[in-house]
Amino acid sequence: MQLTQYTDYSLRVLIHLAKRADGLATVPEIAEFYGISRNHLVKVIHNLAAKGFILTTRGRNGGMKLSRPPSKIILGDVIRNTESNFDIAECFNTASNCCVITPNCGLRSIFREAQMGFIKAMDKYTLADVVTRGGLLNNPVRPPFASRSG
Amino acid sequence: MQLTQYTDYSLRVLIHLAKRADGLATVPEIAEFYGISRNHLVKVIHNLAAKGFILTTRGRNGGMKLSRPPSKIILGDVIRNTESNFDIAECFNTASNCCVITPNCGLRSIFREAQMGFIKAMDKYTLADVVTRGGLLNNPVRPPFASRSG
Repeated sequence: MQLTQYTDYSLRVLIHLAKRADGLATVPEIAEFYGISRNHLVKVIHNLAAKGFILTTRGRNGGMKLSRPPSKIILGDVIRNTESNFDIAECFNTASNCCVITPNCGLRSIFREAQMGFIKAMDKYTLADVVTRGGLLNNPVRPPFASRSG
Repeated sequence: MQLTQYTDYSLRVLIHLAKRADGLATVPEIAEFYGISRNHLVKVIHNLAAKGFILTTRGRNGGMKLSRPPSKIILGDVIRNTESNFDIAECFNTASNCCVITPNCGLRSIFREAQMGFIKAMDKYTLADVVTRGGLLNNPVRPPFASRSG
């Protein structure tokens, strides 16, 4: 039972931006901070901007920031917009499903209810909860390259 | 957000056995009915027997059946015993986790709560609900090879 790496990285970007209220963050900064691929990040960031979670500015002094305060970004909304699918089992994908009992099986509706249980719990929290709960706000983002050059 | 194919197949085996109250089912029968690999099934069945969900009998007239009535097999219990891990995100696996913000990040406890929401919903239902909800019990298992030979 896993969320995709895409959702994981999307949340990391948002967390980074929530902590970094001073100015714009950049792709190299975030990639280096988390030690993850720039190429992956570019796709993640493109989607976050398209879905209205972040604002991006192009150019030499460009970068990105949250589109609204962390307290207005609901975690359930993020996951709904980053998980490529919510196909808990084969029968959720009508195009590829081959399970012969699907028409008469009660499992799908039970799975859906359980999935709603997951999402509803995520809907109770915002990005602000993530950064305040564990004390992230008291541990300001310090990109590795900044400390190296400073 | 997906469960493993292993859990999917485990549930299919249990559903098949819940429907097939007459005698013992065999690996070839279940493999042919669902159109899935015998090798996969053997591992799934071995685990279901080891975890006490089914009873197996070896030999020429051997096979398998549920160890107790479907109403006594809780879906949450099945999933707990078939999902290889419940690592929703990288930070759940302490051995492989590389996320630098883990010590101060509030996301893990929120994920755990959401995961509990999923499992609790599955704990409300039994194998009996799966086969009665969708009408599976009114559509008896008829293995393809049986109808072909009969």
